[in-house]
Amino acid sequence: MSGSSFGKIFKITTWGESHGTGVGVVVDGCPAGLQLCEEDIQKYLDRRKPGQSRFTTKRKEDDKIEILSGIFEGKTTGTPVSMIVHNTDHRSADYREIASYYRPGHADYTFDQKYGFRDYRGGGRSSARETIGRVAGGAIAARFLDTLGIHFLTYVKSIGPVTIDAGHFDAKQIYENALYMPDAAAAGRAQDYLEECMENGNSSGGVIECQISGVPAGIGEPVFDKLDAALARAVFSIGAVKGFETGDGFAAASATGLTSNDAFYYDAQGRIGKKTNHAGGILGGISDGSDIIFRAAFKPTPSISAVQNTVNKNGENISVSIKGRHDPVIVPRAVVVVESMAALTLTDMMLANMGAQMQSISSFYNR
Amino acid sequence: MSGSSFGKIFKITTWGESHGTGVGVVVDGCPAGLQLCEEDIQKYLDRRKPGQSRFTTKRKEDDKIEILSGIFEGKTTGTPVSMIVHNTDHRSADYREIASYYRPGHADYTFDQKYGFRDYRGGGRSSARETIGRVAGGAIAARFLDTLGIHFLTYVKSIGPVTIDAGHFDAKQIYENALYMPDAAAAGRAQDYLEECMENGNSSGGVIECQISGVPAGIGEPVFDKLDAALARAVFSIGAVKGFETGDGFAAASATGLTSNDAFYYDAQGRIGKKTNHAGGILGGISDGSDIIFRAAFKPTPSISAVQNTVNKNGENISVSIKGRHDPVIVPRAVVVVESMAALTLTDMMLANMGAQMQSISSFYNR
Amino acid sequence: MSGSSFGKIFKITTWGESHGTGVGVVVDGCPAGLQLCEEDIQKYLDRRKPGQSRFTTKRKEDDKIEILSGIFEGKTTGTPVSMIVHNTDHRSADYREIASYYRPGHADYTFDQKYGFRDYRGGGRSSARETIGRVAGGAIAARFLDTLGIHFLTYVKSIGPVTIDAGHFDAKQIYENALYMPDAAAAGRAQDYLEECMENGNSSGGVIECQISGVPAGIGEPVFDKLDAALARAVFSIGAVKGFETGDGFAAASATGLTSNDAFYYDAQGRIGKKTNHAGGILGGISDGSDIIFRAAFKPTPSISAVQNTVNKNGENISVSIKGRHDPVIVPRAVVVVESMAALTLTDMMLANMGAQMQSISSFYNR
Amino acid sequence: MSGSSFGKIFKITTWGESHGTGVGVVVDGCPAGLQLCEEDIQKYLDRRKPGQSRFTTKRKEDDKIEILSGIFEGKTTGTPVSMIVHNTDHRSADYREIASYYRPGHADYTFDQKYGFRDYRGGGRSSARETIGRVAGGAIAARFLDTLGIHFLTYVKSIGPVTIDAGHFDAKQIYENALYMPDAAAAGRAQDYLEECMENGNSSGGVIECQISGVPAGIGEPVFDKLDAALARAVFSIGAVKGFETGDGFAAASATGLTSNDAFYYDAQGRIGKKTNHAGGILGGISDGSDIIFRAAFKPTPSISAVQNTVNKNGENISVSIKGRHDPVIVPRAVVVVESMAALTLTDMMLANMGAQMQSISSFYNR
Repeated sequence: MSGSSFGKIFKITTWGESHGTGVGVVVDGCPAGLQLCEEDIQKYLDRRKPGQSRFTTKRKEDDKIEILSGIFEGKTTGTPVSMIVHNTDHRSADYREIASYYRPGHADYTFDQKYGFRDYRGGGRSSARETIGRVAGGAIAARFLDTLGIHFLTYVKSIGPVTIDAGHFDAKQIYENALYMPDAAAAGRAQDYLEECMENGNSSGGVIECQISGVPAGIGEPVFDKLDAALARAVFSIGAVKGFETGDGFAAASATGLTSNDAFYYDAQGRIGKKTNHAGGILGGISDGSDIIFRAAFKPTPSISAVQNTVNKNGENISVSIKGRHDPVIVPRAVVVVESMAALTLTDMMLANMGAQMQSISSFYNR
Repeated sequence: MSGSSFGKIFKITTWGESHGTGVGVVVDGCPAGLQLCEEDIQKYLDRRKPGQSRFTTKRKEDDKIEILSGIFEGKTTGTPVSMIVHNTDHRSADYREIASYYRPGHADYTFDQKYGFRDYRGGGRSSARETIGRVAGGAIAARFLDTLGIHFLTYVKSIGPVTIDAGHFDAKQIYENALYMPDAAAAGRAQDYLEECMENGNSSGGVIECQISGVPAGIGEPVFDKLDAALARAVFSIGAVKGFETGDGFAAASATGLTSNDAFYYDAQGRIGKKTNHAGGILGGISDGSDIIFRAAFKPTPSISAVQNTVNKNGENISVSIKGRHDPVIVPRAVVVVESMAALTLTDMMLANMGAQMQSISSFYNR
Repeated sequence: MSGSSFGKIFKITTWGESHGTGVGVVVDGCPAGLQLCEEDIQKYLDRRKPGQSRFTTKRKEDDKIEILSGIFEGKTTGTPVSMIVHNTDHRSADYREIASYYRPGHADYTFDQKYGFRDYRGGGRSSARETIGRVAGGAIAARFLDTLGIHFLTYVKSIGPVTIDAGHFDAKQIYENALYMPDAAAAGRAQDYLEECMENGNSSGGVIECQISGVPAGIGEPVFDKLDAALARAVFSIGAVKGFETGDGFAAASATGLTSNDAFYYDAQGRIGKKTNHAGGILGGISDGSDIIFRAAFKPTPSISAVQNTVNKNGENISVSIKGRHDPVIVPRAVVVVESMAALTLTDMMLANMGAQMQSISSFYNR
Repeated sequence: MSGSSFGKIFKITTWGESHGTGVGVVVDGCPAGLQLCEEDIQKYLDRRKPGQSRFTTKRKEDDKIEILSGIFEGKTTGTPVSMIVHNTDHRSADYREIASYYRPGHADYTFDQKYGFRDYRGGGRSSARETIGRVAGGAIAARFLDTLGIHFLTYVKSIGPVTIDAGHFDAKQIYENALYMPDAAAAGRAQDYLEECMENGNSSGGVIECQISGVPAGIGEPVFDKLDAALARAVFSIGAVKGFETGDGFAAASATGLTSNDAFYYDAQGRIGKKTNHAGGILGGISDGSDIIFRAAFKPTPSISAVQNTVNKNGENISVSIKGRHDPVIVPRAVVVVESMAALTLTDMMLANMGAQMQSISSFYNR
């Protein structure tokens, strides 16, 4: 069944494998009149590009976006925006061997079980290159949201056992280190940890945190399309995500009502605010006007060169050491993917919310 | 925008508020020929019924299900199954007071912001009674899955700081204590903790775990309708959920590839199995044939009698103590809701998977 | 697969069989703040009620609507509006005989083929009573549209060979005769024709025409959710519809560009209008600001008492004469069903259109 | 709102304008294991290619398909199949003039009203080139259906006043004349008629008929996703369609039950058949095992060189004569578009039907 579309009003459909002609996305339902050029997309893609540091795959790709439709004289026309990134550095030979066995922690086995066979080159559709379409689409969504005063701050909160220190949060640091951590000291420790992983042919997981500011109250469509439920699905659809939480998240389970509830208050201007934000900006599945906060847990990169046990297609139990160009940690490159999925979700929900009240509909249609 | 439907092939649409005529659900897309009677639904609803222990609301409701359509001579006909539970014990008077202010931790404020006003009686649509429709629909899904050899084991893993002890798991205990915990000793400690909460007019959160056995490999529709992404959305759409994780979940973020990957092996019968199940039964968004395992974190019940600060509609900062019949913990009653959402998700995905391979489609249509 | 929902933003889900507890609908996505009471729904249902003239079934039903949720203090709350009409006059005994054979022109055979068996009582889900849910939902949509200045004029254009005369159109007549024809003379001739049909145990088809005024330009979502495509599906989903056309319809196929194109012009107020309306108010799938005009062709009621050939379940070729209470023509009662489906379609499309332009979205969110 | 996707299980998303980089489609949900190569697509596209006769636009385009993803070793993999056709012969200069006024019968005005402005080059997204994506997707659907023994016969039934003669139907003729008419004599008369239209700077409409054989009984999802309703929407979403009918269509409105009902009978092999096919192969929205038959009415090409009245953007009433390369009739080239939309609809419905009965689901999952 079709599973490559995301969104109802603002919808993306992604396509492409690691080793085919390219990967891409069709963005449908983008409002007309949004100023947009390839540079807006490219700067997002550059954040997930491989080859940026020692901790990312050696694969060299330009990942150059090409917009094929939907833009006229620098603005979206309301028709689908189709985009493509060509695959330029694909050496299928590297992957011929993995056709014969199932890599632990990968989708090789499950794709074979589902579809009867698989495009084994570079993981095919389950490759991280699949996320290029998400990011290209997400860049448009982020542009849309930016126009409405909504902004993202997304970063790596932890890598393996190394977590940013409370009180050391420095947003400027995020783009200063290769790991996108808002704490230079923690980033240093994380780099040491990753070096150790690489020496052992091992890999690491990590946690990404996202804060979204400027979201008006009222966004989210109960009871199944709640904002947090939609974000959960969006983020969990990214490969390697094993956990998702909003606000206090799992910590809320061991808390009490008194420590978990956020008190409302009137500020000096008579606006309603909250003293704290344990809720992460969402109450009853609807944004409450404070910052949206969520985290995603990523498992370690499954491709490791250390020896592992598995099975081959000849019915044999074997041990393997996976060769090839793999990141010891995918978390830094996933930051922009998480941000993109959140932007896509929020954009769709912002549009969905426009029909919530009869009064605003009447205004819209001048009645 | 419509947000009260869940599922694509097997779809439920829920409706109803805490204090209207009743609550209900329409189950559409249920295959014809499934044996089904009201008793199958009722036994699920009874698991979420209030008034079962000291820790659940005093509200007395029979929550008696009535099937209105879609069944003929004891079997589903393929047409929509509409079900209703009448609200019998609704005392609106209790709630008139809360119309004037916003309860902390509740959706009062966000509903007002979104819709311009709200049905304040008992929380209206954001009441826990909304889950009755989910459970009634989930009971049919569970019946469907049971026919295919798929079974659920869902229970409370922790309440506040009290967690079941490793090595003390006893499935039989789940239905032996009011808290649905698979560990009698932990259940005892949790009860003590809840008594303490009640004395302080406070409440507690907790964690629910769900294991699903018998799921064949191949279920899930990448890249956006992955099985884990669909479960994440399903479970996160339940009120009060703040976190969701599969397999090792957040712990995977601090693990390494070597400890996180599950090794495949051939068993004596030549079938492929996994030595461990860190993945929680899902690889690349597709079931791998081992047990599906996930957890959901619930925040504490926001309605507490302890004094809290908030605002009223007159522009005043006030302090309130919430009266009425409220559970100090909703987690035990939410067990069947979590199970229901998982059953609905899995049923939809099982049906979606039938079109994955040309060969099986040809067989189906005898070509 | 679920097929009982219609609409994306404003969505209805209908349920119920001819001889179960009742029939109903859940309306989800209705904007909050629409004034609505049961009387608004009832007056729509009364237009499709049986027992109103000699030409409609003798079945006596009150078809009394009951609203179960979604309304608070006389206004919609933004949550699902669930509605039910109880079945009061169902004599299953009448229908036991038809369980054994397939009625020509009915869905008996196809339901058996699809689902393996069927609820044969009164046609089950394929009964005309299924349309009650559509009309109840359509009444809310019509109320929504009325608020925006959009109005319907729906009537019977022809019954069998009797068509309203060109130049004799009199809108006031529509509610003056039992056949809902806007031409008293034609209505008289049609009644004579129907009497003749009844004498022969025969039945008649007919054509319904619908004009919608006040629709702003810009409604419709190319390329697959064009306004006319959506109307075509909506109207064709009504039982017995065999044809649908907009504007000049099939006549356009034998016309030329010169006679088919509508010339634009500026009126005295500087507004753009069209000299003619061959297009029926839709160009490129988007409303052009002139009246929407479409027609639907209905086949004759398949239930007739004249002798017909068919098969029974014992493998025998038999001849039958169908007993029971059946209309010699369903077209007059279908007028409100057609109008309802059009109202539902247009409402959904009006809401969908709100996200078409960046500029209006920015205004909506005050940026 | 996103309107460029069609289908639920087997879904296409089209993109592209007349004068951008190209046009294309993403086909998502195609079962794995379908043998497919570019030639399968190309032969479909060649049927809609311009420049094939005097009656089609002079625009010379190869319309060469390129498959970008989803195929591995000659078979579909279950992942999205992305396809592109580059625009090679676009002379934007031709169209600069039409930027300043609204062409009668075109979507210029409605696009401006909806989106605030438009890509005026060659009609932008409302160009007939948009159908390339439909046909490329439809070719895959047709390949899928062919594998299941389902075949199409689609042809031009009439052009302007010229209709194929009853009793002169000759399927072989369809590909023998440039007009795709199954009657050489009628084709000759139609050509004469078109020459006359061209001399007058005028254009013609026409009717396309489609017969589908081999469809098993049981396909279609009542009550809103009935097979005929889905076909109606699919075909009506093609530009210039003004009417759609199945079986006897509009003629059924003036018929009686006795002449309209199809009698069932047992044939010599004990299979159920129908003596006639007034229903066009669909009863109650579900296929009955006989041929599916439907017709679509197309309006005349709106672009004509004869003088017409319209308005320009300076607020003036003007008269225009449209230059450029336009077909005097689009109906012959639309034959394969109609067939493609029907194939897409039927494929989606065939997959949807697989979950109709519990028994076959249990067989599928070996329980």
